[in-house]
Amino acid sequence: MKGKEKKAVILLSGGLDSTTVLAIAKDQGYFCHCLSFSYGQRQTIELERAAAIADKYGARHLVLNIDLGKIGGSALTDTLEVPKVVRNFIEDECSEERIPVTYVPGRNTIFLAYAMAWAEVLGAWDIFIGVNAMDYSGYPDCRPEFIKQFERLAKLGTKSGVTQEQVLTIQTPLMYLTKKEIILKGLGLNVDYSLTHSCYDPDKQGRACGLCEACQLRLKGFSEAGSVDPIQYQGGKGEPDVESS
Amino acid sequence: MKGKEKKAVILLSGGLDSTTVLAIAKDQGYFCHCLSFSYGQRQTIELERAAAIADKYGARHLVLNIDLGKIGGSALTDTLEVPKVVRNFIEDECSEERIPVTYVPGRNTIFLAYAMAWAEVLGAWDIFIGVNAMDYSGYPDCRPEFIKQFERLAKLGTKSGVTQEQVLTIQTPLMYLTKKEIILKGLGLNVDYSLTHSCYDPDKQGRACGLCEACQLRLKGFSEAGSVDPIQYQGGKGEPDVESS
Repeated sequence: MKGKEKKAVILLSGGLDSTTVLAIAKDQGYFCHCLSFSYGQRQTIELERAAAIADKYGARHLVLNIDLGKIGGSALTDTLEVPKVVRNFIEDECSEERIPVTYVPGRNTIFLAYAMAWAEVLGAWDIFIGVNAMDYSGYPDCRPEFIKQFERLAKLGTKSGVTQEQVLTIQTPLMYLTKKEIILKGLGLNVDYSLTHSCYDPDKQGRACGLCEACQLRLKGFSEAGSVDPIQYQGGKGEPDVESS
Repeated sequence: MKGKEKKAVILLSGGLDSTTVLAIAKDQGYFCHCLSFSYGQRQTIELERAAAIADKYGARHLVLNIDLGKIGGSALTDTLEVPKVVRNFIEDECSEERIPVTYVPGRNTIFLAYAMAWAEVLGAWDIFIGVNAMDYSGYPDCRPEFIKQFERLAKLGTKSGVTQEQVLTIQTPLMYLTKKEIILKGLGLNVDYSLTHSCYDPDKQGRACGLCEACQLRLKGFSEAGSVDPIQYQGGKGEPDVESS
């Protein structure tokens, strides 16, 4: 990878989805500039994983401290309790009742705004984000129409939108994949999922709870992909006490 | 102002424009939640002024620390030199050559994204921002079409966009006013402009340089409004050595 490399900004949380996205972007020949956020989330373990993952892919890694916690309104940044319930996560409609307490108001808009700013400074024309319309759990800012709208905004709100030379594209390679398909895609690209972290409520050793929405989606995905999740769960080695085998 | 107050989020920099906007929102009966950003800008004096101004208007004031400086790309966050040139600032077209080094990539997108997030948490349906199409000096994210596009994004990217109950409006009361008209509007609302700060390059005592674009626009505005700028300039009391009388 020398000479005129094409650059991309990758929104990297350290989770399963964004790590798969990084592997996809790398596979497509991009020089990857990974962007992570420290936003008062309770699980700072994500950032350690993100750093290790970026390092593994020889990617640049920038962590921005943002004060999302001061705004509040989410179980991920406030002290609301993270729900541990078993329910059907795959739905087609986005309705008010389906918006969970783990939804962080404005999060993807803020993340994409920073990614757009960094892309403009870097001269990158692609932003990769691991949003997904299959298991977004009712988050309004994971929908494809939201992403398209952001592209239109970026076209107007940046220097390139003025000069018309090139426009920013937001790449969402996971948008229409199930968790199973995402994992199969990643395994095909030799992603080391033991480095990733998804749990909303890990213990002090960083072990996943196995009971929150993120854990259950993940376990279900590995099970359906005919694979075993390599991370550690609080219930001991292997899967915890949920239907995943 | 009791009972069911209508709430607004005001993007308040502590400058002349955003202070006028706060006065306008207050005059319209909004309970104002002012949002300021600490983003590695060289003039932290702005934040002190913003706090004093919010206090004067009995408004809530939230300051978010954001890492815009880490992204770079602007004379306002990097160590690029702030230009001190006299030129014609009022132009109709936004062209590449007109984008100045003081342009901060993504700034208004990031600011509006936070304002949107806070509005969602507060249950506010109006965001006030002091952007202006007359003297935006070539900033792509000050244009009316950019603001309209952000409203469309907010409609999709928030809970309210899902429930359809109400949509966020971005109020830009200064959009088509000249600096003279902004100042006249503010003086009519008894704005104390001595509290405001506009200079890109103040000295250690916080006195304005009188030479940067922001200072010159301001001085020209006061002069045309038949008024005297009450802030202190480095050239001594009153106006510095520019044509403004």
